[in-house]
Amino acid sequence: MHSSYYNIIENAYRLTKALEDKGKLATYIPELANVDPSNFGIHTTNLDGTNFGVGDNLKKFSIQSIAKVLSLTLAYKILGEEIWERVDVEPSGTKFDSLLLLESYEGIPRNPFINSGAIVICDILMTHLNNAHKDFLDFVRDVSDLPDLTYSDKIADSEKAKGYRNTALCNFIKSFDNINNEPEDVLDFYFDMCSLEMNCQQLSKTFTFLANGGRKLDGKKIISKGKAKRINAIMLTCGFYDESGEFAFRVGLPGKSGVGGGIVALYPQQYTIAVWSPKLNPNGNSFKGMTLLEEVTTHSELSIF
Amino acid sequence: MHSSYYNIIENAYRLTKALEDKGKLATYIPELANVDPSNFGIHTTNLDGTNFGVGDNLKKFSIQSIAKVLSLTLAYKILGEEIWERVDVEPSGTKFDSLLLLESYEGIPRNPFINSGAIVICDILMTHLNNAHKDFLDFVRDVSDLPDLTYSDKIADSEKAKGYRNTALCNFIKSFDNINNEPEDVLDFYFDMCSLEMNCQQLSKTFTFLANGGRKLDGKKIISKGKAKRINAIMLTCGFYDESGEFAFRVGLPGKSGVGGGIVALYPQQYTIAVWSPKLNPNGNSFKGMTLLEEVTTHSELSIF
Amino acid sequence: MHSSYYNIIENAYRLTKALEDKGKLATYIPELANVDPSNFGIHTTNLDGTNFGVGDNLKKFSIQSIAKVLSLTLAYKILGEEIWERVDVEPSGTKFDSLLLLESYEGIPRNPFINSGAIVICDILMTHLNNAHKDFLDFVRDVSDLPDLTYSDKIADSEKAKGYRNTALCNFIKSFDNINNEPEDVLDFYFDMCSLEMNCQQLSKTFTFLANGGRKLDGKKIISKGKAKRINAIMLTCGFYDESGEFAFRVGLPGKSGVGGGIVALYPQQYTIAVWSPKLNPNGNSFKGMTLLEEVTTHSELSIF
Amino acid sequence: MHSSYYNIIENAYRLTKALEDKGKLATYIPELANVDPSNFGIHTTNLDGTNFGVGDNLKKFSIQSIAKVLSLTLAYKILGEEIWERVDVEPSGTKFDSLLLLESYEGIPRNPFINSGAIVICDILMTHLNNAHKDFLDFVRDVSDLPDLTYSDKIADSEKAKGYRNTALCNFIKSFDNINNEPEDVLDFYFDMCSLEMNCQQLSKTFTFLANGGRKLDGKKIISKGKAKRINAIMLTCGFYDESGEFAFRVGLPGKSGVGGGIVALYPQQYTIAVWSPKLNPNGNSFKGMTLLEEVTTHSELSIF
Repeated sequence: MHSSYYNIIENAYRLTKALEDKGKLATYIPELANVDPSNFGIHTTNLDGTNFGVGDNLKKFSIQSIAKVLSLTLAYKILGEEIWERVDVEPSGTKFDSLLLLESYEGIPRNPFINSGAIVICDILMTHLNNAHKDFLDFVRDVSDLPDLTYSDKIADSEKAKGYRNTALCNFIKSFDNINNEPEDVLDFYFDMCSLEMNCQQLSKTFTFLANGGRKLDGKKIISKGKAKRINAIMLTCGFYDESGEFAFRVGLPGKSGVGGGIVALYPQQYTIAVWSPKLNPNGNSFKGMTLLEEVTTHSELSIF
Repeated sequence: MHSSYYNIIENAYRLTKALEDKGKLATYIPELANVDPSNFGIHTTNLDGTNFGVGDNLKKFSIQSIAKVLSLTLAYKILGEEIWERVDVEPSGTKFDSLLLLESYEGIPRNPFINSGAIVICDILMTHLNNAHKDFLDFVRDVSDLPDLTYSDKIADSEKAKGYRNTALCNFIKSFDNINNEPEDVLDFYFDMCSLEMNCQQLSKTFTFLANGGRKLDGKKIISKGKAKRINAIMLTCGFYDESGEFAFRVGLPGKSGVGGGIVALYPQQYTIAVWSPKLNPNGNSFKGMTLLEEVTTHSELSIF
Repeated sequence: MHSSYYNIIENAYRLTKALEDKGKLATYIPELANVDPSNFGIHTTNLDGTNFGVGDNLKKFSIQSIAKVLSLTLAYKILGEEIWERVDVEPSGTKFDSLLLLESYEGIPRNPFINSGAIVICDILMTHLNNAHKDFLDFVRDVSDLPDLTYSDKIADSEKAKGYRNTALCNFIKSFDNINNEPEDVLDFYFDMCSLEMNCQQLSKTFTFLANGGRKLDGKKIISKGKAKRINAIMLTCGFYDESGEFAFRVGLPGKSGVGGGIVALYPQQYTIAVWSPKLNPNGNSFKGMTLLEEVTTHSELSIF
Repeated sequence: MHSSYYNIIENAYRLTKALEDKGKLATYIPELANVDPSNFGIHTTNLDGTNFGVGDNLKKFSIQSIAKVLSLTLAYKILGEEIWERVDVEPSGTKFDSLLLLESYEGIPRNPFINSGAIVICDILMTHLNNAHKDFLDFVRDVSDLPDLTYSDKIADSEKAKGYRNTALCNFIKSFDNINNEPEDVLDFYFDMCSLEMNCQQLSKTFTFLANGGRKLDGKKIISKGKAKRINAIMLTCGFYDESGEFAFRVGLPGKSGVGGGIVALYPQQYTIAVWSPKLNPNGNSFKGMTLLEEVTTHSELSIF
């Protein structure tokens, strides 16, 4: 059964690789603009541990916003349902860094995956961890089985240097009293968090705990089954900024994208898939990544629907 | 296996019935305000045809917006993917009858389940059917195996008499050239469409085709498998107005609510469930209906996530 | 003194006439698109009754929204300060027919000169007059000394046939209970009200009562001095849609524009000026009209500032 | 003539003093919350140099946003009409520190008197002056004939410590490339600029140049006549946040308010008036100050309309 699925992946990869890439490199983080835009990889890991990849599946890239799922996981584990007093679980309906809704909802971000929401999650972690930078990294090292994983200072510094929009968001939320630490410190952690790098294989493996009821493949519990399901639900409704409905519609899996061009998606109880192609569509999601995942799920009938 | 699931439903029903109902009757459709607010029923139908219900599961109620899934199904079947040029598939992020986003997106409703989107779907059906009122009714009679189903003039007239917001929406969209027929005619059909009445048993049976890859339980094809999946995806991301994320998060099934207090949800390849309790929460969804479905899915582990 | 002022007007007219007209004809009212776009006239009336005009100052045109000042005058006279419970006096900051702010302010239009506000004023007149169509016309005939003035059915019908945006506005406000009559009837009156036609001479004479403390040149009192001042204040802050600040900045007089290309402005205690040039700038105000008035006020030092 | 006007002022003062103060002290700048809320003064200066005041007219208070008129004056003088490429002259229609419109207009503030606009003006001054802090202070010392005027570090530090909203605004504008200096530096200057203190007598004298065609009472030219008129126009349309229309309507003079409870207004060619009462209405303008000015202008017929 795996082999036919692997065939589908390989064929979908070749088909998509041949397509014209209508996306554009993200430019607002200068370091990301230096990435070779022709990189293109995919890797899938199923819950029995077997895995398969094609293309640039072993090259590291900046996972960016994909890390927001991991910071949410840690904060949700620590704070429980109380967390939803600080951030909501609704799709935003508007651009990913919009301040409009923040104003309407008086500083409560619509969900933990838009920038404003992820910044509030960072604030929560800073309040509840001894050393958020270190403790979060340790957590991700554990989840991913990558003991040498580190933040990329180069990426973090590059984003920080141009991080006016995020600085605006963080201070705006602070003005509504929904940030407890100093904005500058929260942002430092936020930029670190977004600077993690993985390759497609590592990324697909890291996310298996969410397809596996909250447990790593080795059985270690990361988070409860119920919470894992709920994180998956939020990925489905909010994982792709204002293209979340489109992704559910075309691909039909919970997932999360990053401006580095990575996307991770998962089929509960079965597989995870990570793809990477740096050029983004106008909504900030990997152009070829979206296309490739649509191809794979159409032919493999992977959709949860 | 069914029997334990039926047990869960029965227990969840009794538990929820005992709770204080914090909802309020919809008042903007005068006829709906006359309904006995203590009505409360649930019915589930599984794809082998067996079915089970509790409470007021055999009393008819106004399914209201739930019918939007059926009008979308018919329009999607007729027009194919072209339909998405007229309406988008993104969650709206704001109140169910907001004009804000219509203005930003120049008359393209965010999705087919908010009022503006459903009105555009009605316009499409009027253009492509000989007699939209009759042909749509015939379609629903076929899908539901209810040959005597009719529109409720009382409900339609009552909603029409107070339908200023929908009249505003329809004319606003028309001003952007995304309505082709006369607003008054489109609204007449829209109010008819929303006036259909079913009981929980009928409603759960009617929606089995969406859990069953587009086919009725007798095997008759209503819509293609791919389109059925996509409709399910839209129900998950957009079926509950600006509480869609919350429903995915708490219940984890594709579904659709109506202001009559009905909700239908489905677990692909397995079951459908319809609940009815007239009092609504502040987001316009049945207060006890939401609670009951959360209870059922929590204990039965029905979530697609 | 008058003669040097008339010289300024004549020179400014010639200068502006020679400029390229960067405006565009309004197209959303089909009849207005049939007007010869090269029409260009100006007429000034001072409070001693002397008056002077150049160009097409004696050709009739559709005064459109300029009539909103007259309907406000009549409603304010009837209802007094109570009127401000139904409509506010603040600039809208956004496009002239925006629904955004109506939603935020729950059906209270920002001011009586944007369409939504003028529609509420029409509703007020319908409630307080025996026959709003006839009584308002009589009022304008009196103010203007034009006993034969009539509504233009051609213009009213043309606007009505494409009046989807205004229908949307009226029904939207009705849904907030700030319209008491039937939307269709209110709109009929609104379209009639906007269909009045005058030439520049007539228009400048009609508005002298606002420059003259509420009295016509023959001394007849139309409205109290205090109310006249307040109407002037609203013209200054709200008379030019979202270009009101620009008009105050460049021209510095209270005034009101219409999509027919007319503008009337006034210098309290001194003069009124009416200009007409059909092509509009992107904000819906006469391109050459604005330019001409700026020329005149710059050279005559007419600004109230 | 002056004496009857002074009588009006004195009577209006006594009348207003006796009224219940429905306003509330500004709390977002902690230092301002320490001011005795019963302070209440008024002072008028006419262009012949005679002047008159009542109450706490000689007590210093924080003029706050009133200083934005002075920073605009200096920037306008330096940059000329080019300045309007960086900031618009339209009323905002929404709350004084809204980010909504900044997003719609891509970083161009609606006018120079809302916080975002004043921050852009500060950025302009920092670019064009050697030492903005010192040079602006020297300019205000000159305009006001107050050689010992200084910034209040206490006020500036207090506002800075809670300045999250302004930090958000500045960084947000920077993300649209409409701030050229470092946000932190621009804000430092902004907080200094807002920290100036004057009493009513000094404030009314300082603003005489705007009533006097751009010249101080001693004849020294501060800015051209045309520019003075235009600044007056902006004060009229934008001087009172989203209550600007109300102020024009009730008072009918160009003016500017500050959250310290001060208001300055002027009647071109005649007078200036400064009032101070610390408690603010819900729109952020002095409650008694607005009332007092309305009383004065109603009885003195000072309105420019």
